[in-house]
Amino acid sequence: MPKATRPTRNAALLATLVAVLVVALPANAQERAQWDGVPETRLAGTYLLHTANEPNILVRVLTTGLAHPWSMAFLPNGDMLVTERPGRLRVIRGGALDPVPVAGVPPVSDAGQFTGLLEVALHPRFSENRQIYITYRTADEESRVALARARFDGRSLQDLRVLYTSAGTPFATSSGSRILFAPDGTLFMPIGGTPNSGTSGLRAQDPGDPSGKILRLRDDGTAPSDNPFVGRDGYLPEVYSLGHRNPMGLALHPLTGELWAAEHGAQGADEVNVILPGRNYGWPVVSMGREYSGDRISAQWWQEGMETPAVVWLPSVAPSGMMFYTGDRFPAWKGDLFVGAMMVGRIQRTGRIERIVLNDEGEEVGRESILAEFRRRIRDVRQGPDGLIYVLTDEEDGALLRIEPVERP
Amino acid sequence: MPKATRPTRNAALLATLVAVLVVALPANAQERAQWDGVPETRLAGTYLLHTANEPNILVRVLTTGLAHPWSMAFLPNGDMLVTERPGRLRVIRGGALDPVPVAGVPPVSDAGQFTGLLEVALHPRFSENRQIYITYRTADEESRVALARARFDGRSLQDLRVLYTSAGTPFATSSGSRILFAPDGTLFMPIGGTPNSGTSGLRAQDPGDPSGKILRLRDDGTAPSDNPFVGRDGYLPEVYSLGHRNPMGLALHPLTGELWAAEHGAQGADEVNVILPGRNYGWPVVSMGREYSGDRISAQWWQEGMETPAVVWLPSVAPSGMMFYTGDRFPAWKGDLFVGAMMVGRIQRTGRIERIVLNDEGEEVGRESILAEFRRRIRDVRQGPDGLIYVLTDEEDGALLRIEPVERP
Repeated sequence: MPKATRPTRNAALLATLVAVLVVALPANAQERAQWDGVPETRLAGTYLLHTANEPNILVRVLTTGLAHPWSMAFLPNGDMLVTERPGRLRVIRGGALDPVPVAGVPPVSDAGQFTGLLEVALHPRFSENRQIYITYRTADEESRVALARARFDGRSLQDLRVLYTSAGTPFATSSGSRILFAPDGTLFMPIGGTPNSGTSGLRAQDPGDPSGKILRLRDDGTAPSDNPFVGRDGYLPEVYSLGHRNPMGLALHPLTGELWAAEHGAQGADEVNVILPGRNYGWPVVSMGREYSGDRISAQWWQEGMETPAVVWLPSVAPSGMMFYTGDRFPAWKGDLFVGAMMVGRIQRTGRIERIVLNDEGEEVGRESILAEFRRRIRDVRQGPDGLIYVLTDEEDGALLRIEPVERP
Repeated sequence: MPKATRPTRNAALLATLVAVLVVALPANAQERAQWDGVPETRLAGTYLLHTANEPNILVRVLTTGLAHPWSMAFLPNGDMLVTERPGRLRVIRGGALDPVPVAGVPPVSDAGQFTGLLEVALHPRFSENRQIYITYRTADEESRVALARARFDGRSLQDLRVLYTSAGTPFATSSGSRILFAPDGTLFMPIGGTPNSGTSGLRAQDPGDPSGKILRLRDDGTAPSDNPFVGRDGYLPEVYSLGHRNPMGLALHPLTGELWAAEHGAQGADEVNVILPGRNYGWPVVSMGREYSGDRISAQWWQEGMETPAVVWLPSVAPSGMMFYTGDRFPAWKGDLFVGAMMVGRIQRTGRIERIVLNDEGEEVGRESILAEFRRRIRDVRQGPDGLIYVLTDEEDGALLRIEPVERP
């Protein structure tokens, strides 16, 4: 059995504490040290983990030194783009983090944990047009959610053009805005920013306000003519679905092609919903969550005409980016939904990847938490073109991880 | 820093596995050993743990060698009674487990994990009448839920009398039946046994069937005349509330005096409900859970006339016994709800105590998992007369634990 070493930042403190207490506790106080295996050190190298249906996986640290990375995109040449929330776009070039950020990123607001530079996505015909899309909160006083595109020449963004800017200021700390291109060339983009059940929450039910909505846009930022509310009085034509609190993850179901979205509930009741055009997902009229004061958001948890979530977490996990696994490298995971989870802290839970086991009809049949041992906020989880799973940890010194199968010798 | 030793039953296997893999993984494979701190060994001695609001607690193993202990009761002389599901009633006498079980326990059915000898409770005037109450599944073919009382003379049960037997056979693996005496001298007793949403589930909505109900009885097993459905055609007079799936924990809120009950949902959606007389808690008409096949139990999660839970867990934790903390030994926990949780296994979560932080209005404002490091199924959690917290782990070699504050020197 290997000798366990525990280099932690709090080692000195812990040692002192245990030393003090060991006087009163001759028996098992020392076992504390081996149970509290929190890796406080910087992640490095490769870790072997066991999971329920893929018995052995490796977690490889591809790079650290990313400041609150938010999203990632895979370039056709094998390189990757990673956004850093403070406003930098980074390149993992030939497997290593390029120390020079991509030039030409517009100024962003970084007032809170949900603002700043957020999403990066490639245009479906990137190989031809070199267009990438980003979302961010604008640096001006309004701090709106903006969607922009630019040509990426490998080192900088050229000809950046803002395609869409949300009307009305979203709530400062809550406006995830993933970008997901659909096969028809349109893109989905959520706008959160309606976290409380009062004034801001009611914006989620106002079809003339983009906050609390999932939008569907053409690749030039305009509303497609087949959007569900086009031409309807009082409705923004870009609105695809309404009644959202703060959607942070989007993915297309590999079999049905349906849009799935993960969103943050209030205290309790984070959700994944199957997003259908024109539907209302209830916030804040219907919610199982509570205010942080303990008051119920809603006395009723369902009503006619509002959609029921596909997945609920209660208590909250703080879902982030998500993906369906469609590769061949982890056969037992095929078809399952993976959602990043960021919750850490007072409730003694930790960030992790939530695996939702789905049957052939896309119905949940089980759940598993993966990477909880890392005790990191997981900000994004995506399948790479190689069928491996890439993960971003949201920290001041954030990491890009890759989950790999253990090759049998 | 103390040197960590990990005596685990799987140590040899793990060492081999790591030894094989360490060839391919020179960097961090060894860290696996320190992260997977599962105490496979028998619990013994005292453990120091940290929790969110009570920074240091001790967990003292009072005894092991209890076969699937289910419930406990505190005797006025400081001794304790503990039920073992296979059908033995044990005494913790002068702090140590008496090797001789209490004589006179009736034969019980022990066909599954929810059958056998279940609850033990003292009559409110035990000091005068020496009466104890037990619940169990009868050993005959019907395997009904029975409530019996007997005089406890310190070594045996005398004059045992069956006070109540449930009509109809409950489902084999699911009939928790706690006993909770109310200040008015009546007792509450749940009868589960309606785990699936089909035929058995519908029994929970049938007021003429005791399954899926919480009953309120006099201390002689008859129905009090002020029960909500007394005299109503088709209703059993002992029914207090209906629409339950499998309630496993009962406690009275210390301020409101209201009855709270924890119950197992299907896949997902375990609940704690505030139980009001005559109310319907929805199962299986309204449920957020799913069949294990993945199908939804119900398309709607709320309807007029059915009660909304106070607490929901999604995914499931498998709640067991519960208590409100009212003592002075853990000031930060005063007024909070503690619920045992038994879930272990495929979803990589583990048994633990769920602490539900409540505000003065009894509304949830936070949650914490305690004792998860032990990776044990927690079957019961009760406050002792000394203000400490007593815990039973549900295993073949189950333990009685006591949670104590760390006294400041």
